[in-house]
Amino acid sequence: MDGLFESELAKRGDMVYEYIRSDRQRKRFHGMDVHDSVYLYVDGKRGKSLRPAVLLFSCGAAGGNEEIALPAAAAIEIFHTWTLVHDDVIDRDSMRRGGYTVHEEFRRRAIELGYDSEDAARYGSSIAILAGDVQQGWSVSLLSELADCGVDPGVVLRLIKMMETDVVLALLAGQTLDVQYSRAPIESLSEDAILEMLWKKTGALYEFSGKMGAMIGLNTKDEGNEMVHSISQFTGRCGTAFQLQDDILGVVGDTKKLGKVVGSDIKEGKRTLIIYHAFTNADSAQKMRLSKTLGNEGASDAEVGEVVDILSDLGSIEYVSALADRHIGEAKRYIERIPQSGYRDLLLMWAEYMVKRDF
Amino acid sequence: MDGLFESELAKRGDMVYEYIRSDRQRKRFHGMDVHDSVYLYVDGKRGKSLRPAVLLFSCGAAGGNEEIALPAAAAIEIFHTWTLVHDDVIDRDSMRRGGYTVHEEFRRRAIELGYDSEDAARYGSSIAILAGDVQQGWSVSLLSELADCGVDPGVVLRLIKMMETDVVLALLAGQTLDVQYSRAPIESLSEDAILEMLWKKTGALYEFSGKMGAMIGLNTKDEGNEMVHSISQFTGRCGTAFQLQDDILGVVGDTKKLGKVVGSDIKEGKRTLIIYHAFTNADSAQKMRLSKTLGNEGASDAEVGEVVDILSDLGSIEYVSALADRHIGEAKRYIERIPQSGYRDLLLMWAEYMVKRDF
Repeated sequence: MDGLFESELAKRGDMVYEYIRSDRQRKRFHGMDVHDSVYLYVDGKRGKSLRPAVLLFSCGAAGGNEEIALPAAAAIEIFHTWTLVHDDVIDRDSMRRGGYTVHEEFRRRAIELGYDSEDAARYGSSIAILAGDVQQGWSVSLLSELADCGVDPGVVLRLIKMMETDVVLALLAGQTLDVQYSRAPIESLSEDAILEMLWKKTGALYEFSGKMGAMIGLNTKDEGNEMVHSISQFTGRCGTAFQLQDDILGVVGDTKKLGKVVGSDIKEGKRTLIIYHAFTNADSAQKMRLSKTLGNEGASDAEVGEVVDILSDLGSIEYVSALADRHIGEAKRYIERIPQSGYRDLLLMWAEYMVKRDF
Repeated sequence: MDGLFESELAKRGDMVYEYIRSDRQRKRFHGMDVHDSVYLYVDGKRGKSLRPAVLLFSCGAAGGNEEIALPAAAAIEIFHTWTLVHDDVIDRDSMRRGGYTVHEEFRRRAIELGYDSEDAARYGSSIAILAGDVQQGWSVSLLSELADCGVDPGVVLRLIKMMETDVVLALLAGQTLDVQYSRAPIESLSEDAILEMLWKKTGALYEFSGKMGAMIGLNTKDEGNEMVHSISQFTGRCGTAFQLQDDILGVVGDTKKLGKVVGSDIKEGKRTLIIYHAFTNADSAQKMRLSKTLGNEGASDAEVGEVVDILSDLGSIEYVSALADRHIGEAKRYIERIPQSGYRDLLLMWAEYMVKRDF
């Protein structure tokens, strides 16, 4: 990966985190547990800022000044953050980016205060539910600050409505499907159903990031604008490819680089496309082995290793990798429709980055 | 209570529920569990619509056309609804308005689908967390629809920002304090601390309902406007009085009329002002009896009855009732500052209704 691009990406991450970590933002949140729960992921090891970066690039590619879109970039990062906080409660994950998840952190604090273990777990979950709720509100407030940067209030209202209806609904429908699918027999699913879930869980927010950047850049309410359409189709497809790559890393990635345990998707029985592909192509002996380990939280490393071998033998990892590349190819055809610029180059580099990363 | 007022209140409830139950709103929510979870409280036995009603009255009292404020009235009702959905998860309540809470309803559906009992409980909570998240987004979208009714987009943005920062924060800080207080020794609290929690949990949203109605009525961004100030101080104080009355009904109300079990506050060990007043005025025998029953989920009806007798003997119920009346008195002094009108009369009747109701 090009060092130049990584420094451009890091620069946008710095801009966005400087904005959301500023005293002006921080001082809204009073009370120790309120502030600490809302800022746990913000002050901790930060995310890759892929969504805010693509929003800022999209604004520039549409001919706008990316500085103006900064409140929207901050909004999208906090929007993503609240969904993580609630997903972590739902999935009962205790680690995120090498630190504790919000509910786990506050469960531990409650234990230190002398709560019994069940009560501490309840307290942790309660704080995490409330923290995500506050962050959702915060993301809307951040978006409303666009109007102070010269964006037409009518445009800002349109963006808020899109984020709070279309995007929230897509994301949460995706999360609901994920919860439902993980409990459904794998044979009852289909590739299209899984891709739809991936688009809702991840692609939709990336599509919106591009759309929002372009609409701000053009200061337009018109979602149907050709430039807005090309850019948002591009970012949405890259988002889905990113999720496919994530599923691959969940099987063959490096635990240390990822900050999460590789193989956990297998033990959790997650309905990823890799697993679905393997299952529908497995012979009966392989199917039996897969069924025994998928969704078995107590599976040994050796058992998980056998599953990884099967996924590899059946070409499932390659299959999904090729699918991700196909999404990137389609995405590029959209972005080639917009005028050449330094920002368009950044978008093209970003697309490669989405599937070439190993963390 | 005046039958005229009740019919005026019911009329506003009908207007608001017609708006949120319309096909135009409903069709946003696809997928069976998404639609059903989001609409469970909306389609069920509806709330008293006190917040939307006072918002509409406030708009009229400020000289505006209440029809224009209808999307905001719908927004405040859905906003209130999402906080109930999440509170019910946090408090693990299984009943609301005579029906199942969202998490309980979906736990039951999961059991019917063959989930084991722990998994069904997890599924129910997950759906309820997601449903509340979707509803929060929905409430913001509803508010944004004001701009289609001729309200200045700048005013709408200001209202959205207030709801999504000030109000969300106050409510959730109140809920966090409630969670924390219920685990703290009662002696460590104070009347001011409990009143602050009540204001945050309930008063803030009522204050905002009045403020929003007045700002829409005047089509102004100016929160400091004298009319806006008088109306919002009025509705906020009435809201706190309403919560005090709620605490009284939680001890001496009629289970059937309330749709919830009287005495549950006692068994849950809720830190209401009634309990605090009794505890700080009790002799050592009474204190021992209170300590034994408060927070004891397995307490018998006789034990709960003894606590009610102590609360009554120590004048704690009367004390809190007088305090509620004092809040209403203060509230009225604010509302008397605005010009006389039919809407102002409705606000005054509403104030009485807030503390005289027995359900």
